[in-house]
Amino acid sequence: MNVTVRGRTQHFRTVTFDRAQNAVRLIEQRLLPHEFKIVGAKNFREAAAAIRDMIVRGAGAIGATAAYGLAQGALAFRGNDLKKFSRHVETVCQTLKSARPTAVDPVNAMNDVLREMARGETVAEQQALALAAAEEFANEDVRHCEAIGRHGAKLIRNGMKILTHCNAGWLAFVDIGTATAPMYAAQAQGKNFHVFCDETRPRSQGATLTAWELAQQKVSHQIIADNAAGHLMQRGEIDLVIVGSDRTLGRTGEVANKIGTYTKAVLAARHKIPFYVAIPLSTIDWNLKRGLDIPIEERHESEVLGAWGTISNPQSAIRDPQLARRAYVRVANPASGARNPGFDMTPPDLITGVITPAGIFKPKELWGRRHKLGFQS
Amino acid sequence: MNVTVRGRTQHFRTVTFDRAQNAVRLIEQRLLPHEFKIVGAKNFREAAAAIRDMIVRGAGAIGATAAYGLAQGALAFRGNDLKKFSRHVETVCQTLKSARPTAVDPVNAMNDVLREMARGETVAEQQALALAAAEEFANEDVRHCEAIGRHGAKLIRNGMKILTHCNAGWLAFVDIGTATAPMYAAQAQGKNFHVFCDETRPRSQGATLTAWELAQQKVSHQIIADNAAGHLMQRGEIDLVIVGSDRTLGRTGEVANKIGTYTKAVLAARHKIPFYVAIPLSTIDWNLKRGLDIPIEERHESEVLGAWGTISNPQSAIRDPQLARRAYVRVANPASGARNPGFDMTPPDLITGVITPAGIFKPKELWGRRHKLGFQS
Repeated sequence: MNVTVRGRTQHFRTVTFDRAQNAVRLIEQRLLPHEFKIVGAKNFREAAAAIRDMIVRGAGAIGATAAYGLAQGALAFRGNDLKKFSRHVETVCQTLKSARPTAVDPVNAMNDVLREMARGETVAEQQALALAAAEEFANEDVRHCEAIGRHGAKLIRNGMKILTHCNAGWLAFVDIGTATAPMYAAQAQGKNFHVFCDETRPRSQGATLTAWELAQQKVSHQIIADNAAGHLMQRGEIDLVIVGSDRTLGRTGEVANKIGTYTKAVLAARHKIPFYVAIPLSTIDWNLKRGLDIPIEERHESEVLGAWGTISNPQSAIRDPQLARRAYVRVANPASGARNPGFDMTPPDLITGVITPAGIFKPKELWGRRHKLGFQS
Repeated sequence: MNVTVRGRTQHFRTVTFDRAQNAVRLIEQRLLPHEFKIVGAKNFREAAAAIRDMIVRGAGAIGATAAYGLAQGALAFRGNDLKKFSRHVETVCQTLKSARPTAVDPVNAMNDVLREMARGETVAEQQALALAAAEEFANEDVRHCEAIGRHGAKLIRNGMKILTHCNAGWLAFVDIGTATAPMYAAQAQGKNFHVFCDETRPRSQGATLTAWELAQQKVSHQIIADNAAGHLMQRGEIDLVIVGSDRTLGRTGEVANKIGTYTKAVLAARHKIPFYVAIPLSTIDWNLKRGLDIPIEERHESEVLGAWGTISNPQSAIRDPQLARRAYVRVANPASGARNPGFDMTPPDLITGVITPAGIFKPKELWGRRHKLGFQS
């Protein structure tokens, strides 16, 4: 999507490949929203480190980084010995996989690339096929997000106020994003609308990443505390909710997503406000039979007990570089601890529809359309 | 309640009067939870400044500060001239009232004191009556909170997990508090229970004030992000919700309270978890006929866009006094704005009961019991 740096607007993808340098280029997401910077992973170990250290995050984005990282590792091999090459590729895959051991996207992405590579008969052929497959993985991610945008844009009418939670935007994918895709598509169609971004404590991805994205794309928006959506719904100020999904159960239509999503779904149902979940196909889980079986990660309590930001005095315009550095402040009582569940589960009866690259469905229709939606058994 | 300073546990009230020094003594709440300090207002102008600058906040606490401030001002008068004394008292009242022009508690408190003073025939008599009336106002505030605790403690059974939102604790009153009163009473009865404190963004009163109170009183507790309660309810981890009230409509049973209260009531109703509101009599509004007519204050967006805390590195134990100072960090995207409604309204059908000093009632029963609950028409 567009980013304006020093007055100049350019199009960027979250992850790209630099063939000349054999480097994976990434937006350094840990610096956002305060600084925009592209960094290059010069070899597959650096690509793995970028995934591990969360320079890049989000389902599609880490999938593409792993696919490119595998191609990068393959291309770095010198020689014609296919056996040695295979062992090298195995090391590359293990290194990239171990960067985020519980994530499913890098594994799926690398399997796509390995399947294509197997068609080559020489090292050089396999190297070329690896890069082509990685490019295809990234392009398919973009096409899927475009399709989500095409279907979802129909839900957005002129003058609507839309609520979103956390970041399921282009920064989490190669481009466009999922929950944001209908917004960007509607904007391209000339529709006017306003987005409320839930702050999304404790990590504040709504206030930092989603708000940054929408500001760069010039989409009208405001950040609200996670506590405020109920009040706005009560006063008729929200017409539509669109969120993303970390894992959707293909068999039941239950959706696991960032903590707080369930609360917004309950509020939307009370106020009869349509609640949509934009789901990339890679996050559909066709195996699990019960939402309550989804393991909910309990994260470190320091996220709840404080906040990260840049130090500034809101009453003045201090520009001291020392004071402008990024810092963690302890907000909470020093003697108190916290519980920090990272995700929650929204049942299908609270979800108006799931927006997929293949169209919009009721959550319980997913299983019946599983073959169209990439189910492989 | 109890506060432990340098290993020594002492009982404190939020507001007290020092007769020898003719000073109002207050807990400097702006330093909490990071520092506990008692400050003295040496004259009625300093008492007014303490209300204005939010050294003291909360319905009962600012009421008592105004009552004591009026007595303090009266006692500072030298001479026997009743006319001059009356003009002086008028100045004192105006100064205290203008400290928080929209607050109703200081006005009601001072009217109580003025009514008592009118019974005196000399300056000296009126001065003595003023102080006695201020003491009585503070003591009645404590008795009301004790009564709320007595009634509410019956709701708490051994092993319960209780959710509370924002701070309706002793720091907001002279002592004990309202939403916290049942917890402190149940603790005194030897019951075991655990409290989840909603962080309560954007001002984080749950993470700072309520968590500090509960830690000082050794009540088992954890802070949670405002997003997390829905998930905990879904997993059966919350048995009871108790919150406070900024304004309760005596005619309809609607409750205005800190933003996010409504959301918790909606979630509790879905999960059939009892939802109680502890209400001090002073916050019952017997006039307003519709909750939607309650004006909802829109506060400054900087509260949503950042956070206040002490700077520290969570990975180490830096004790550099420079780094330990309190600072504001900008969390959100610098180019984005925010909406910041301060309160929301919870309808009576979501409220299991209101805990008053006169007993626990259904919200719609308030009007029928208005004479018992202090309604004056």
